Amino acid sequence: MINLASDNVVGASRVVLEAILAANAAPEASYGSDRFSREAESRLKAIFEHDLKAYFVTTGTAANALALAALCPPWGAVFCHEESHVADDECGAPEMFTAGAKLVGVPGVAGKITSGALEHVIKRYPRGAIKAVQPSAVSLSQVTECGTIYTLDEIKALSAVAHAHSIPVHMDGARFANALLSLGCSPAAMTWKAGVDVLSFGATKNGCLACEAVIFFDPAKAADFEFRRKRSGHTVSKGRLLGAQMLAYLQDDHWLNNAKHANAMAAELNTGFKSIAGVRLPWATEANEVFAIVPRRMADAFTKADIAAASWYTESVSLPRDEYVKADEVFLRFVTSFQTKPEEIARVLDVARTA
Amino acid sequence: MINLASDNVVGASRVVLEAILAANAAPEASYGSDRFSREAESRLKAIFEHDLKAYFVTTGTAANALALAALCPPWGAVFCHEESHVADDECGAPEMFTAGAKLVGVPGVAGKITSGALEHVIKRYPRGAIKAVQPSAVSLSQVTECGTIYTLDEIKALSAVAHAHSIPVHMDGARFANALLSLGCSPAAMTWKAGVDVLSFGATKNGCLACEAVIFFDPAKAADFEFRRKRSGHTVSKGRLLGAQMLAYLQDDHWLNNAKHANAMAAELNTGFKSIAGVRLPWATEANEVFAIVPRRMADAFTKADIAAASWYTESVSLPRDEYVKADEVFLRFVTSFQTKPEEIARVLDVARTA
Amino acid sequence: MINLASDNVVGASRVVLEAILAANAAPEASYGSDRFSREAESRLKAIFEHDLKAYFVTTGTAANALALAALCPPWGAVFCHEESHVADDECGAPEMFTAGAKLVGVPGVAGKITSGALEHVIKRYPRGAIKAVQPSAVSLSQVTECGTIYTLDEIKALSAVAHAHSIPVHMDGARFANALLSLGCSPAAMTWKAGVDVLSFGATKNGCLACEAVIFFDPAKAADFEFRRKRSGHTVSKGRLLGAQMLAYLQDDHWLNNAKHANAMAAELNTGFKSIAGVRLPWATEANEVFAIVPRRMADAFTKADIAAASWYTESVSLPRDEYVKADEVFLRFVTSFQTKPEEIARVLDVARTA
Amino acid sequence: MINLASDNVVGASRVVLEAILAANAAPEASYGSDRFSREAESRLKAIFEHDLKAYFVTTGTAANALALAALCPPWGAVFCHEESHVADDECGAPEMFTAGAKLVGVPGVAGKITSGALEHVIKRYPRGAIKAVQPSAVSLSQVTECGTIYTLDEIKALSAVAHAHSIPVHMDGARFANALLSLGCSPAAMTWKAGVDVLSFGATKNGCLACEAVIFFDPAKAADFEFRRKRSGHTVSKGRLLGAQMLAYLQDDHWLNNAKHANAMAAELNTGFKSIAGVRLPWATEANEVFAIVPRRMADAFTKADIAAASWYTESVSLPRDEYVKADEVFLRFVTSFQTKPEEIARVLDVARTA
Repeated sequence: MINLASDNVVGASRVVLEAILAANAAPEASYGSDRFSREAESRLKAIFEHDLKAYFVTTGTAANALALAALCPPWGAVFCHEESHVADDECGAPEMFTAGAKLVGVPGVAGKITSGALEHVIKRYPRGAIKAVQPSAVSLSQVTECGTIYTLDEIKALSAVAHAHSIPVHMDGARFANALLSLGCSPAAMTWKAGVDVLSFGATKNGCLACEAVIFFDPAKAADFEFRRKRSGHTVSKGRLLGAQMLAYLQDDHWLNNAKHANAMAAELNTGFKSIAGVRLPWATEANEVFAIVPRRMADAFTKADIAAASWYTESVSLPRDEYVKADEVFLRFVTSFQTKPEEIARVLDVARTA
Repeated sequence: MINLASDNVVGASRVVLEAILAANAAPEASYGSDRFSREAESRLKAIFEHDLKAYFVTTGTAANALALAALCPPWGAVFCHEESHVADDECGAPEMFTAGAKLVGVPGVAGKITSGALEHVIKRYPRGAIKAVQPSAVSLSQVTECGTIYTLDEIKALSAVAHAHSIPVHMDGARFANALLSLGCSPAAMTWKAGVDVLSFGATKNGCLACEAVIFFDPAKAADFEFRRKRSGHTVSKGRLLGAQMLAYLQDDHWLNNAKHANAMAAELNTGFKSIAGVRLPWATEANEVFAIVPRRMADAFTKADIAAASWYTESVSLPRDEYVKADEVFLRFVTSFQTKPEEIARVLDVARTA
Repeated sequence: MINLASDNVVGASRVVLEAILAANAAPEASYGSDRFSREAESRLKAIFEHDLKAYFVTTGTAANALALAALCPPWGAVFCHEESHVADDECGAPEMFTAGAKLVGVPGVAGKITSGALEHVIKRYPRGAIKAVQPSAVSLSQVTECGTIYTLDEIKALSAVAHAHSIPVHMDGARFANALLSLGCSPAAMTWKAGVDVLSFGATKNGCLACEAVIFFDPAKAADFEFRRKRSGHTVSKGRLLGAQMLAYLQDDHWLNNAKHANAMAAELNTGFKSIAGVRLPWATEANEVFAIVPRRMADAFTKADIAAASWYTESVSLPRDEYVKADEVFLRFVTSFQTKPEEIARVLDVARTA
Repeated sequence: MINLASDNVVGASRVVLEAILAANAAPEASYGSDRFSREAESRLKAIFEHDLKAYFVTTGTAANALALAALCPPWGAVFCHEESHVADDECGAPEMFTAGAKLVGVPGVAGKITSGALEHVIKRYPRGAIKAVQPSAVSLSQVTECGTIYTLDEIKALSAVAHAHSIPVHMDGARFANALLSLGCSPAAMTWKAGVDVLSFGATKNGCLACEAVIFFDPAKAADFEFRRKRSGHTVSKGRLLGAQMLAYLQDDHWLNNAKHANAMAAELNTGFKSIAGVRLPWATEANEVFAIVPRRMADAFTKADIAAASWYTESVSLPRDEYVKADEVFLRFVTSFQTKPEEIARVLDVARTA
């Protein structure tokens, strides 16, 4: 079977698994005070070239919801793309963790919001107007839900709007490494240098089993974080599980190499699809995701060939205005990972061509 | 170093670790639909001799809070021992997950509540009195926070009181296996046969890295559970991590053997302490925890010998009425685990005797 | 001063005030068990020609938030117009009372959603998809935030969509009487006969001081309501205050007569404005609100003449596509009430014409 | 009928009612910006001899819950008497408004906590211990649920304990005036001079219809209050209703005269009961409440004579150790008010003596 439905259908990398094993030799302090977690935080400081506080949790939903809760009061508004993961795919976790804040959707093609649209929407929530929830955070997804990437200038422009309204910027970096490789810049450049205040730094999809970091570039914003993490049940007792994964992930450019490979596989698939008549790619392939509108008989051929992709939302508001999925077409998402093999991509393209 | 501060300072067992590794071979469905999780649920059905729904999460706090939230509306009351883990050690997680329910402490020596005390306290919250939070669940810890065990008759009596008031019974089984071995009964006998409706089935402390199950003996009570788990960020994407741990834990009596060993080590420590003048054991050692009031110079000797125990609450209301910790004494908790070695126990006793 | 900024800038009617006074003669049971509240509920049953449960509260925000909380779990989605009062003007009260549900905005001109748009948006939240908040309620404003009215056919069509998705319909009737008079139908026709399940029945704006009713046409849906009201602090101890207002409001068609007058005043203002060059009315005047885009110098003239109107949102997404407020224009809302005098309307038009 | 079940069974005073009427003459700004509310705040500043922020709401539950939410994070602990109103009689409102804080009961006879007991309980929640909810507020009831009064020295001692732990003090003054008259001191002396930071200033029970003030002696603590009030539905649109009541209540010592009368009536009832064999008064009558354990036949005689008292909790933990209610006895609460007539007290005592 070739499963490209998501990058969470694969397991962890051998490197990460061996680190989990190796971390079992000796007793360790519990609840995140283990030396693996402490070292991983130090390593992140070096990688991001900045002082920071890093907290490890097992899921991206927890990372995002905890990060937003640290920034946003119950009467706050979080501005995010209207089809972003925090808005649409976390079953209301941000609302639960913030005790009722409102996620305000900003429209935009290809999963990206523009600084103009952001400015326009923020203005609908005037500072100090008691009846209105108060602007409290902007949340950007890098990579976006459409597999696209914000350029550094775009991030800077969005941060500038946020900061002009005195609100911090959160980046949902579930696929942070894939975005970084795509831009070819430093972690610092894509985050705090571009105005990002808090980062959900994903590792699970790109080589770990269950490990994400919430990173605060301003430690003061993290003051209450440990209480929030504990009372949401996200303080793992044998914290070495998380620390060891993260350390291995960051060591010897493992994370970058994994993402590099995944992106290359997606690029190959993208190139192949472009040469096949009847396939349309509504969004640019900029990281490790390829979205393709294909004839239904091609989708059937994939299924028959035991190739799994994810059915995507035919009514996505992120589609270009003039693009839509016809009755005899299917909208598919293919996600490559550090484990995807070139021959798998070749096979997918073969099946596509034949269909 | 000999670290007996808790049973979460050790890592996972080799058996469990190898299962995590082995589960990495192939792609798997995400979010708990993997075959390891499904098989683990089947295995639990067999072990508990009952139909059930089992959901896996990474922490005991998540398991307890999610279980209580499934039973209890925001205006509900959960009756539990006043020094229970859910009441005192989870930073308000049950309150967060239930959206504001009240944990009502029931007093009792040695961490155990009596059916009389329970009845008395429940009556203070009359059914239908709008101003009062409404009785919604009883939560029992088995093993208790004092390392003691409810007998089957005691569980039955408490369940009878709960059910007479039409409220379900939750068991916090963070050390379920240790209790089971201590009672020498079947899992069924200690749970649904004794009136338990929902169980937090702990595995982390007894051999896993991060794995607990929330088990509903009445699947109807689990109707909304997956939404609750998702929006609290506890639906692990690579769910095989949890399924594989649980499967290995349950296989070949691994869980029972681990607990048997831990309990035996605690019994040995208990017997040793009893023979040492100046050491008082306020609570019976019935599972894998030994609580000892020791002279301060003995505690210092432990520290010097690199033996770690946990400082316990000298003002615990679970102490017998005539027992208290004097100024020159220290209250310590020693927790044994599947990894504790007989020579470590011997060493602790040696140091104690010498001091 | 002529204050038409809102219908809550006036006090209560003489009839209502005298009823508050008269209700003070004797001791009464507290917390809503007084005979005035009971009689008011009976009266509502007669008026709505249906069995129902009615609960009285002091504010419209409380009525809406409590009604939605009764229908919607924390992981629920409430579909409402994207500029509706529940979405934009209650500082997140529905989110607080539901413990985190999501208000999903549906677009539509003139403050009204269409059944097509509703259907389209509901589909984005598939039933049973764990990652998505679950469709739980549709909330309609009658009168809308733009002063327009849903016809009976429109309400029926929207209810049909909601019910086809197994979700109940809430009507925010803060200006219920004004809408009813406008349609000229019975209270039953505009509510349960058209598919409305729960109604926020406003009385404050139309003659009371602080009184709204939450009305459940299916008493089963109200099962937990009294707990919700109590724990949100909305169970008034001297409940006669609410019961007496509502009784007086309903007696001798007082509520209908008040609304009739208010609507007539708005109609007069509307007619007048239409004859004045430079004034544009982007939305039809169908109840007691007139929205006018006027030259800035006219707005200044109003201010100078001590005439107060509310500044409206120039960037409202409810405006017709081709309509916008120019730099030298101002967008104003005029709301008439049971106390508005014909000579006040005449004066406003005079000032407008002269400007 | 003579109804002494509570001080909320009577209506409002004539003075207050007339003020409500008089406030209806002219248009007023909405949502608490009316001139009555502003003047009432000024008046409170003079009465309390201190700068302050005062917010008006309709119920005591709202006042308490909003006050505590302003002081206490979701992971906070509020220390209060274990049978206090906030803990037992508000259906979990503080938990709802704080998004899950824990109300920690402190034991004590006669409804009063001692500084020793408070110190003891606070210590169980160590500052910075992540697993423990964090000490965030002390809440005192003045008058207590047992009708008793804290002396100024007692309030100071309790505040000293609270402030030594860096936590603020809230006073639930639902019967503030009755307590004040009983102590014969100034409002300042009983509040900020004794260490009280935030006050729920009750007016409803003592002459108003529905009006309480939340008073912050440190305006900085009130920073977010208006958002909290709005989103809980407690910002009354025609705010004059609240402002007018409060102004009338405070004018010409109306509030003090009302309380003086109520207290005198209770004192008379207390003196009478003391002279009747078979009646025991477990708690001192220090304000306007008399608690009496009476023979069942006397209780029956009251019922027969159409005299209503409230049945009190026979298992109250506030009873003195050696006091309990026997099988043939009934525990009753009598509450006098500004409307209680001397002849009503005489009649109650007559019936009691005869029985």
